[in-house]
This record gives sequence, structure tokens and C-alpha cells, in this order.
Amino acid sequence: MYKLYEFPSSGNCYKLRLAMSQLNVDYERIPIDVTRGESRTEAFLRINPNGRVPVLQVSEGVSLPESNAALWYLACDTPLCPTSKLEQAQVLQWMFFEQYSHEPFIATSRYWISILKAADAYREQLEEKRPKGYAALDVMEQHLAHNSFFVGDAYSIADIALYGYTHVAHEGGFDLQAYPAIRGWLERILRSQNYIPISH
Amino acid sequence: MYKLYEFPSSGNCYKLRLAMSQLNVDYERIPIDVTRGESRTEAFLRINPNGRVPVLQVSEGVSLPESNAALWYLACDTPLCPTSKLEQAQVLQWMFFEQYSHEPFIATSRYWISILKAADAYREQLEEKRPKGYAALDVMEQHLAHNSFFVGDAYSIADIALYGYTHVAHEGGFDLQAYPAIRGWLERILRSQNYIPISH
Repeated sequence: MYKLYEFPSSGNCYKLRLAMSQLNVDYERIPIDVTRGESRTEAFLRINPNGRVPVLQVSEGVSLPESNAALWYLACDTPLCPTSKLEQAQVLQWMFFEQYSHEPFIATSRYWISILKAADAYREQLEEKRPKGYAALDVMEQHLAHNSFFVGDAYSIADIALYGYTHVAHEGGFDLQAYPAIRGWLERILRSQNYIPISH
Repeated sequence: MYKLYEFPSSGNCYKLRLAMSQLNVDYERIPIDVTRGESRTEAFLRINPNGRVPVLQVSEGVSLPESNAALWYLACDTPLCPTSKLEQAQVLQWMFFEQYSHEPFIATSRYWISILKAADAYREQLEEKRPKGYAALDVMEQHLAHNSFFVGDAYSIADIALYGYTHVAHEGGFDLQAYPAIRGWLERILRSQNYIPISH
């Protein structure tokens, strides 16, 4: 059985729980409290030398760090991933967009505001992150204005990757009022089969 | 024929030129000077709404942003990518590591110091990036101390992705003297078939 090393309120970890729920995959959850340094212990660094969660242990001694690589492993041969080479590359395109242009701004703001509850201490950094987070939301809104999902008009791990932190963007101080296409897409995912919330 | 929209001195763009050279793929180069705002024009934003290079145009009207997604598209069915699901996920793991934990620190430092030639103006930001860049190099060194390449002991697009900015890390102020395993790996790539330098 898979083991998921995770910090439960992390959107990156939730991506994997949501995918595994929707794929009917069983797994064991192993909590790692990143706010208490548990992802930087000697024992955990043997599992992921980069000191981050999630890590998906796929078999004894074989662990996959990086949420989107683990999503790919779980879903690459399921209906949550397209079959053509071009659409698979487009799934990856949006997953790299998520990790480079979205997560460092929206997820980090949420971490400071809602997990650490330290908005005052991070005021300056939060101001720097805000326009970059909104720029990512703008790119998503433009795409979703003409598409139901990110790739091939079908729900895939590209959507799961972007859903992880977009649906809790308000916890990072981002207002989705001006993003009707994103809000419609969030609704569609909320109604998808075997959906589970982040707090599950 | 493929078209590559690129800023030639960008490591992200070089990744694709190196891969296409090694795969004997022909392509046309279209220079986009990011220092002059050419990646943010209305015309370019129609090609990539995220306003970044490289973009690989794979056919008329079909463009792939995100260097590592384009690498995947070019190489997923070639000897530059492994065939097993686990090793493919490990290739992606290292490519996500590159974009999240390596590029934002090492590539950005190089951009400020060697492309914009503005080290003084970015002194404070450079100091903040330095330990994070070295942390990424530490993770690479640890892996390469026991492995010739990043996945399955064979040269792959995971190596090309990480090579892009690691081999010019000194242009970002990073000293590889303390990283003998990385230096050995750089040498192996330099000797790989159909290698081309970044300035090619």
C-alpha cells in the first residue's frame, strides 16, 4: 500500500489525496508537521533530501517527492491523464506553470497568513507576492474563459494540480470575485466524482 | 518544422536547443529579447499568455510554453527518456525540483549578475537567493555522489533540465569547487553525443 508523508493542510499534499480518492487508491497517511521542522529531520531527509512534503512512498524503499511527479505516477495511465503526446505535454505545461508561476506566490502567502498566522511579520513579502499571484490567476482566467478544464476539455491531473491552492487562494488574501471563469471551474471540480475536501 | 521562440542566453531555452541537437531535430530560432520587454508584447502574449520564453511551436498554431514540458514532448519516446512508469516519474521529479528549488535561485542570480549586469542593484536579493541555490546544489551533489546521472544511471532530459543552469552557475556567483560529483557529471554531459554549448 502507498504511504503518503504529508502536512495535511498543504495544498501540495491535498492534490495527492484528492487524486487517490478519485482513483480509488488506498494509502496510509503519515503526518509530518513542517511548522515544527519535521521535514528537516535526519530521518526525513533520508526519504527526501530536499526536505519537503509530500512524498509518496510507492513501494518499500522507493519514494517520490514533488507533488506533480507523484500525481503523474498515480494517474499517467488512468482517465485523469490524456493519452496523446501533445495533451500529455500540455498537462505538464500547466503543472510546471503551477509550480513556477502560481504556488510560490499563492501558496506561500496562504502559509504565512493562515498556517503560521503571521501576516504582520510578512507584510512586505506578502505585498511582493500579491501581483505575481494575481498574474497567475489572470492566465488561468483567460484559459478557462474558453475551456471547461485545462487540457483537452477533460478533467485531468492538470486541474487537480491547479485546484490545490486556487480553491484556498482566499486564505492567502486573494479575492476571486473578478475571476468568474475560475469560480465556475472550481464548482465543476467540487462536483467531480469521489471529491474530498482539503480538510478531509 | 519546429519553431523555438527564445532568448538565446537563457538556460531554459538552451535546454531545448541541446535536446534538439542530440535528437537530430531541425528547428527555426526566433529571438525574443526579454530584457527589452519582447516577451510581454501583445503579439507574444497570444503565443504564451504567461509572457515567458522558451515556447516551442510544434505545429501551426500549437505552442508549448514551459521548457520542461517541451523537453518531455521532444523526448518522451526517445532514448533521452526512460520507459518505465517509475523512472518517468523520477525524471519529472527532478524536473520539478529544477523549476522549484534550483532555477528561481541560480538562474535568477545569473540573470541579475551576468545578463542585466546589475549585481549592485540586486545585492540584497542576491544574498537571499545564495543559500537556497547552494541548498539545491547540495541535493544534486548528494545524488550524484552515488549515481552517474539523475535517473536510472542513464543520461536523460532530467540531466538536460538540470544542466541548463548548473553549468553556468558561476555566472550567478555560485562556486562549484566544493561539488566534485556535480563537476564530474558536467564533464560527462560535455562529452555526450551532439553536445552544443549555450553560446552556439
